[in-house]
Amino acid sequence: MTSAPEKAPSRDGSVQDAGSLSRAGDLFQLLRDGRARTRAELAITTGLARSTVASRIDALMNSGLVGPAGEASSSGGRPPSRFAFNPAARVVLAVDVGATHVIVAVTDLGGTVLAERRLKQQVADGPDVVLGRVVAEGLELLGESGRGIVDLAGIGIGLPGPVEHATGRPVKPPIMPGWDGFDVVRYVQRSLPVPVLVDNDVNIMALGERTAYWPDHDNLLFVKIATGIGAGIISSGELQRGANGTAGDLGHVRVPRGDDVLCTCGNHGCLEALASGMAVARRLAANGLEASSGADVVRLVAEGNLQAIQALRQAGRDVGDVLATVVNLLNPSMIVIGGSVGEAGEHLVAGIREVVYRRSLPLATSHLRIGISMAGDRAAILGASQMVTQHVLSPAVIEATLQATG
Amino acid sequence: MTSAPEKAPSRDGSVQDAGSLSRAGDLFQLLRDGRARTRAELAITTGLARSTVASRIDALMNSGLVGPAGEASSSGGRPPSRFAFNPAARVVLAVDVGATHVIVAVTDLGGTVLAERRLKQQVADGPDVVLGRVVAEGLELLGESGRGIVDLAGIGIGLPGPVEHATGRPVKPPIMPGWDGFDVVRYVQRSLPVPVLVDNDVNIMALGERTAYWPDHDNLLFVKIATGIGAGIISSGELQRGANGTAGDLGHVRVPRGDDVLCTCGNHGCLEALASGMAVARRLAANGLEASSGADVVRLVAEGNLQAIQALRQAGRDVGDVLATVVNLLNPSMIVIGGSVGEAGEHLVAGIREVVYRRSLPLATSHLRIGISMAGDRAAILGASQMVTQHVLSPAVIEATLQATG
Repeated sequence: MTSAPEKAPSRDGSVQDAGSLSRAGDLFQLLRDGRARTRAELAITTGLARSTVASRIDALMNSGLVGPAGEASSSGGRPPSRFAFNPAARVVLAVDVGATHVIVAVTDLGGTVLAERRLKQQVADGPDVVLGRVVAEGLELLGESGRGIVDLAGIGIGLPGPVEHATGRPVKPPIMPGWDGFDVVRYVQRSLPVPVLVDNDVNIMALGERTAYWPDHDNLLFVKIATGIGAGIISSGELQRGANGTAGDLGHVRVPRGDDVLCTCGNHGCLEALASGMAVARRLAANGLEASSGADVVRLVAEGNLQAIQALRQAGRDVGDVLATVVNLLNPSMIVIGGSVGEAGEHLVAGIREVVYRRSLPLATSHLRIGISMAGDRAAILGASQMVTQHVLSPAVIEATLQATG
Repeated sequence: MTSAPEKAPSRDGSVQDAGSLSRAGDLFQLLRDGRARTRAELAITTGLARSTVASRIDALMNSGLVGPAGEASSSGGRPPSRFAFNPAARVVLAVDVGATHVIVAVTDLGGTVLAERRLKQQVADGPDVVLGRVVAEGLELLGESGRGIVDLAGIGIGLPGPVEHATGRPVKPPIMPGWDGFDVVRYVQRSLPVPVLVDNDVNIMALGERTAYWPDHDNLLFVKIATGIGAGIISSGELQRGANGTAGDLGHVRVPRGDDVLCTCGNHGCLEALASGMAVARRLAANGLEASSGADVVRLVAEGNLQAIQALRQAGRDVGDVLATVVNLLNPSMIVIGGSVGEAGEHLVAGIREVVYRRSLPLATSHLRIGISMAGDRAAILGASQMVTQHVLSPAVIEATLQATG
């Protein structure tokens, strides 16, 4: 609940209510597309009075979020000024925590990466070690980019396990000892007092891939195939996390072919036990090949090893078996295959396509694209940045910011 | 694009821009919860000036959407008036077209059914016959409710096949000869010139069930089990239709147990070929029982026939096999089982629960409820009404209405 604002005189001397001044955020949402506009254009598009547009533009210029963008051509007299969103106004710290690596990046509000650092780091070292390092490296990276904490709009963090997004706490993450229920937000905010948003890594990979490469696809599925298998779901343009934040868990869906394969979860026939990088490596090793990880599978396929190629294509068919169901259920227009094994080539995707186009409904596959991730190992960084800007540039937060500073 | 509005004097004589007047819709969205509020309460909650609130309330009173709601208690002087949403202001025509029936109902803007008529009607008679009858019966029903076309806010229609929601056209519906690509909206609007919204019946059943009985469940799956099998998906509080409007098609997901059963779609082992009312009836008939439809299955189960009970429970397990995947994927907090066979009792749901709780991830089932539809055969009517009110009471449409009439 906010208190009723006072009436404020506007630039042209008339009295207008602060309610409309507080609507500067609406104008900002319009300008977020990056296109430069004059005050007159903004008045026509929004239906607002020109005096109102002028005062709102002033408030946005004061915040730095909107800047001058050159002059428009004019039929005579002084050419009118144009204004546009200024993505350089603030920066975001984007963090991708993997099982054995951490990537820390500084981006602007448009998702452009300004600086980036890749570290070897075991997530199993626990939250104190990992997040302590994230904060220290983040501060250094900010400095190297010529920016300070005062420029930081927020921090986005992806973690390799289930996360309760509302609180930012990991929930029983299998490969993250010491992290269960840890208050990631409070820990990071002790050093960096800005909004901190945390999510599962596959969710933010979906967000990053879609924002950067497929903005027109409102129904997109991102499937990560690496040591494990998981998915991020975008429906109606929004990331879907489900009731407890576990949506997209494809890894433990049952695949008929695998009924005699025991999974680490205790069930038989889970997709992950059949088609993950680790599962394929195990099968190849049993056949005498040197393979102990997904990376080894990728290497063998790159070397043209026929057994590895066949195994990867079969893994693709198994993934396709599950995706055929997902396609009937969610009717996406785009499926992106990512993760270290997923990015490894067409053999996997060929197996996926083979089964999906055979098993899914014709109506659901008539316009369906299946392709390899374009964002690659930057998907999570791009998504972490996007998660933060979606929040800090949202109408509600922009209103609050402008009212606090204006 | 709208033209810039003129400045208009407000009630207290000050000049304010029409931009804020056009925001009467924001006030309305606040009042939609049905709670009565005074002008002062509205000013505090919204942060708007009291003069602005007064003029917006006037506009909403003129439209009839908001009405007086008695007087608030006061510490002295004249007690202030209170205002609330008036769901009786307009009515909705809600239509549920099934394979062999049509239900036409008149509801108010709050989804309360004012009048209802149930007709025997084959959808296969084609759109001219079926929609002609819908219009004629709808007009009669309006008259019986003491309302006219002028009171009609819109018409919502559910059809038993895939529908392109944006255009309201059926897309290759298997059991609806003559309907493929038919312009339902234009046909109905020739007689009733109001907004017409069309969707797949299972989608609006999900909407109706959720709105009427589970408003707190933002992630809900409605599974219809009748002659066929389908689902309506609500994620993040929104109905999800997918890229081509085919989302929720569970009927043709492959069930391992059914690999030797041919489905009408040409594939083997589809859920519908194993567990629909028709499939169960066929199996019972092969064992010498008198069963040729889902209704017969329901009757036999009600009579305590052990074979029918066992068959229905097995159908539940087959449905559960597919729902276990859906639960991992979407992480709903509520699964509602509906449709004529789905409503028939606990045997089916018991089979579903058995498999879902065994196969899905513990994190995803820890707070999951699985239950039988509360809305029953009114789910589609309630959903059709809700689909219309969601549209005609949305901020954008309310703004446009108020600007046109104000």
